[in-house]
Amino acid sequence: MEFSSKLLGKAVNEMSQLPGIGKRTALRLVLHLLQQPKEYTTQLSSALVQMREGIKFCKSCYNISDVDVCEICANPHRNEEIICVVEDVRDVMAIENTSSFKGLYHVLGGKISPMDGIGPHDLYIEPLVDKVKKGSVKELIFALSSTMEGDTTNFYIYKQIQKYNIITSTISRGISVGDELEYADEVTLGRSIVNRIPFESSLKQ
Amino acid sequence: MEFSSKLLGKAVNEMSQLPGIGKRTALRLVLHLLQQPKEYTTQLSSALVQMREGIKFCKSCYNISDVDVCEICANPHRNEEIICVVEDVRDVMAIENTSSFKGLYHVLGGKISPMDGIGPHDLYIEPLVDKVKKGSVKELIFALSSTMEGDTTNFYIYKQIQKYNIITSTISRGISVGDELEYADEVTLGRSIVNRIPFESSLKQ
Repeated sequence: MEFSSKLLGKAVNEMSQLPGIGKRTALRLVLHLLQQPKEYTTQLSSALVQMREGIKFCKSCYNISDVDVCEICANPHRNEEIICVVEDVRDVMAIENTSSFKGLYHVLGGKISPMDGIGPHDLYIEPLVDKVKKGSVKELIFALSSTMEGDTTNFYIYKQIQKYNIITSTISRGISVGDELEYADEVTLGRSIVNRIPFESSLKQ
Repeated sequence: MEFSSKLLGKAVNEMSQLPGIGKRTALRLVLHLLQQPKEYTTQLSSALVQMREGIKFCKSCYNISDVDVCEICANPHRNEEIICVVEDVRDVMAIENTSSFKGLYHVLGGKISPMDGIGPHDLYIEPLVDKVKKGSVKELIFALSSTMEGDTTNFYIYKQIQKYNIITSTISRGISVGDELEYADEVTLGRSIVNRIPFESSLKQ
C-alpha cells in the first residue's frame, strides 16, 4: 500500500500493528480521525499514554488497578478464604459481572504454553503458592479456559499446592442456560450429564 | 462494562469511539498495548497526533499530502487534461495501484447525501467547476461509487460543467475479471452486456 503522505503512512503502519487490525482497517480508522476535530486524536493519544504509563498491577492479586492494592482485594466484605484463579483481567470482569462470587481473585497473566514459550515462571504462580502456604486460603477455584494449556496450568498449580490440603475446585462446564440440547456439542453435553446436580439445589439458583 | 482501573476505562472508552470498534475489541486492543513495551504506545500515540496536526490537503486536488501540492499534481509527466473525480483518498490509492491512469485526480471529500446532511457546498465541487471553467481540462472521469448518492453527485457536477463542452465519462461497470457469469448479479451482468466493447480492443488489455 502506497501513501501520498508519509505522516499518513506512519500512522497507518503503527495502527496496523494492533492485533486484528490490518492495513485497510487501519487506514479507515486513521481517515476517520482526520474527519473528527483535532481534540479527539489528542484525547485518544493521551488516554493511551496515560494508561500505559500509569497503570499498576495489584500487589496481591495482579489484577489491573490504579492503586497498589485493587478494590476487590481491599474490600473487607470479600471472603479472603476463597481464591478464584483466572488467566487475565477480562476473566475477572466477566466473573464480577455475574455478582455470584464474593471471594478474591488471583490473575496468572496467561497460561502455561510451551508452544508460545510461556513457562510456569512467566506467570504469577509462585505468589499464589505462597498465599496458600501461609494458610489463610481454604479453597482454590480454577477458572481457566478448558484448553490443553488451561488444563496443564491447572494441573501444574494443583501439584504445587496439593500438600497443603486445601479444597480445589473447577468451574462447572455444561450447556448454556436457555440452549437446546440437540445443538450442544457432545463433550459439553456429556459433562452436563456427568456433573449433574441435585434438582433441589437447581431450584434455588 | 465496569473497569477495575479508571485509566483503563478511559482508554477503552476513547478507543471504542472509533468506527467498528466496540467496547470488547477496544479492551482487547488496550490490553495488548499493556503487554507490549511502553515505547510502542508512545510511538502509536505520537504518530496519530503528528498525522492529525501535520497533514495537509493538496491545494489543487484535495488529496491528502505532506506538502501544499501533492506528488501527483506536481508530477510533470501526468496529463493535466484528464481529471478523475473520486470520493476520497482511498479511491485515489486504489486507482493509483492499477497503474492504468496517468491523468490527475480531484477528491470531493464525500458524496451529496441529504440523509447525512451533506450538501454540494460541503464538498469540493466548486474548485472542480473552476478548473473546468479555466479551459485546461478536456475530460472528466466520474469514478464515484454507483449508489444513489454517487449518481446524484455525478449528475450535479455534470449539470454545472455541461456548458463548457468537455468530454465526461464514467468508469465502466461489469463483472470482475475471472468471475463466473452464473454468480454475477443481474444489474452488473446487464451493464456488462449493454456496455460491451469491441473484441479487438479487449485483446490489447
